[in-house]
Amino acid sequence: MTIINKFRERDIISLITGLLEPESKTGSVCRPVVGPGNDDCAVINVGGSGLLVATTDMLHRKADFPSGMTPYQMGWMSIAVNLSDIAAMGARPVGIMTALGLPPGLEVDLVKELVTGMSACARRYGTQIIGGDVDRHDELTIVGSALGMVDAGQLAMRKGAKPGDMVCVTGELGTAGAALEALQQGREVDPEVLEKFYMPVPRIVEGMALAGSGCLTSMMDISDGLALSLHDLAAASGVGFHIRASDIPVHRSVRDMATIGDIVVDDKVVGDMVVDDKVVEDMVVDDKVFEWSLYTGGDFELLFTLNTDCLENAGKVARFTVIGEVTASGITIEREGHIEDVEPRGFQQFGDKV
Amino acid sequence: MTIINKFRERDIISLITGLLEPESKTGSVCRPVVGPGNDDCAVINVGGSGLLVATTDMLHRKADFPSGMTPYQMGWMSIAVNLSDIAAMGARPVGIMTALGLPPGLEVDLVKELVTGMSACARRYGTQIIGGDVDRHDELTIVGSALGMVDAGQLAMRKGAKPGDMVCVTGELGTAGAALEALQQGREVDPEVLEKFYMPVPRIVEGMALAGSGCLTSMMDISDGLALSLHDLAAASGVGFHIRASDIPVHRSVRDMATIGDIVVDDKVVGDMVVDDKVVEDMVVDDKVFEWSLYTGGDFELLFTLNTDCLENAGKVARFTVIGEVTASGITIEREGHIEDVEPRGFQQFGDKV
Repeated sequence: MTIINKFRERDIISLITGLLEPESKTGSVCRPVVGPGNDDCAVINVGGSGLLVATTDMLHRKADFPSGMTPYQMGWMSIAVNLSDIAAMGARPVGIMTALGLPPGLEVDLVKELVTGMSACARRYGTQIIGGDVDRHDELTIVGSALGMVDAGQLAMRKGAKPGDMVCVTGELGTAGAALEALQQGREVDPEVLEKFYMPVPRIVEGMALAGSGCLTSMMDISDGLALSLHDLAAASGVGFHIRASDIPVHRSVRDMATIGDIVVDDKVVGDMVVDDKVVEDMVVDDKVFEWSLYTGGDFELLFTLNTDCLENAGKVARFTVIGEVTASGITIEREGHIEDVEPRGFQQFGDKV
Repeated sequence: MTIINKFRERDIISLITGLLEPESKTGSVCRPVVGPGNDDCAVINVGGSGLLVATTDMLHRKADFPSGMTPYQMGWMSIAVNLSDIAAMGARPVGIMTALGLPPGLEVDLVKELVTGMSACARRYGTQIIGGDVDRHDELTIVGSALGMVDAGQLAMRKGAKPGDMVCVTGELGTAGAALEALQQGREVDPEVLEKFYMPVPRIVEGMALAGSGCLTSMMDISDGLALSLHDLAAASGVGFHIRASDIPVHRSVRDMATIGDIVVDDKVVGDMVVDDKVVEDMVVDDKVFEWSLYTGGDFELLFTLNTDCLENAGKVARFTVIGEVTASGITIEREGHIEDVEPRGFQQFGDKV
């Protein structure tokens, strides 16, 4: 008997998509343009000039809502994670459905706050809750399904990056990792970092602007962490990446949060050198920030590639940071003069016992 | 503290939809034409001549999958319940997303069978699984989200029935109630009845044909039972119904299943009459069949109303049964010469302690 937890999340998705009908090659009306497991959203040609994009995400209390989150924030997050996938296609959200699994003993006021948070997030990004389902469930479970529309010529996909393109991200990374570790250790979290973690900003505005700029060659969201996303984008586009760690944008409080932690320095001998406490502490802090910004999920930013001759145009429509270049193969990161491989790890739902 | 289980399912839905933005009056492009809680699907004008319809349904092992169901049948059912909502709008399905909550100890082969059943149901009705999500969950949970397209002129809605119209249903009712009771009592179930219960047939073909006939005035599916659906349709259309119990189509095995049960006759005095065993047994059987076909959920058939001058046209495109008429108000049923009110009860997820 082989159990699900022997597989990693991406292997389970491959196993499932392998059982489904292959995607349509033609993109004819009402046939999927993008098949399951291949992008942030499914894409359907519904006739007319627009394409429909659709995505679904399941969240539940134990895994996805750290203690301390208000019901309003849970509602906001459950919508934001779906809108982040819509943003990754360069699409405009047109509606969200939500299926709620509610424990029968749940307080009604909690449900009201939850729905108010959902509705607020949807409205903030120009859309609304258009339908849903309620179900009795042991654990609070929220499944959002978001729909968006995009002009066929502006659809952003994971496929399309080519060697020489610039690799870019919106916003700042590492906040989710820093917040989660601080919460787990019972330490105080910078309120701005905590809000970014609990109420992520789906990059709808940036996604649409970048898609409309004509400069994009590929895009996805980095909800499972930058490292896993680089691997996904590389696989979809058939390219490699070279990233500069020093160029990854990090929130100013994230470095402070790494220093506040209970750092235990076991050994002051690094390589052949004996170094003083301050140097060792700096190295530990660097390691933490590196881990949070590269290998930790929860930062709902966009990762995308741009034509090199298009930087100025793209910069006029959205704020972002160039963090590296597209290469022919390999996924590497330069860090303090050394080059290392980016490991394919990040947030995974399964695979504890691989 | 008021808990969710003090409310009935429809009250929870009203509570939630009351917190959301009112539906758009204009039906302009990419604004919902039908708001949350008002029909079997949300409806969005996505430009062009077609309307997008969308629905989501959450199922989970304990409540929705009776023991004895195979994973393939669970997969089939989880897609069929969503397609039934698409059918109720007269729409053609164009894609289904599925979010799977999987216990980490679940066997991989079970997941494969489940997905194969999902895919088979989707393909049987001309569509496919276009995307989804996997999540780690204590209880097997399946959330389907189905999308469909319908020409604006052929959209079927709950609103539109008018006094004098005929009330009709597809297929046969009572099978789910009969099967569930037999399973609960450990009795044998007619294989045909069991298959109809485990692998419901979404009435996609009939829904599209009826919508295209130009004869429909309103339509919905009766997944929560005929009685609750009559109340929903009456509320949406601002009308009443008069139904004839003897005209409700019942599967030939359902009556047999009612007689097979352990019927305990407590009292042979009915009214002022003393009656013999056979008569009392017949009455108990009638009561069971009546309860199963009117007040039990799980029969995924369509309930709809037709213009009276259109019966012949509609009969050419789909098989159905006329069970009553639309009236100005009140929801009544005629049964063996007596007329009684149809109670607003059926399948409800919540409200045990009302």
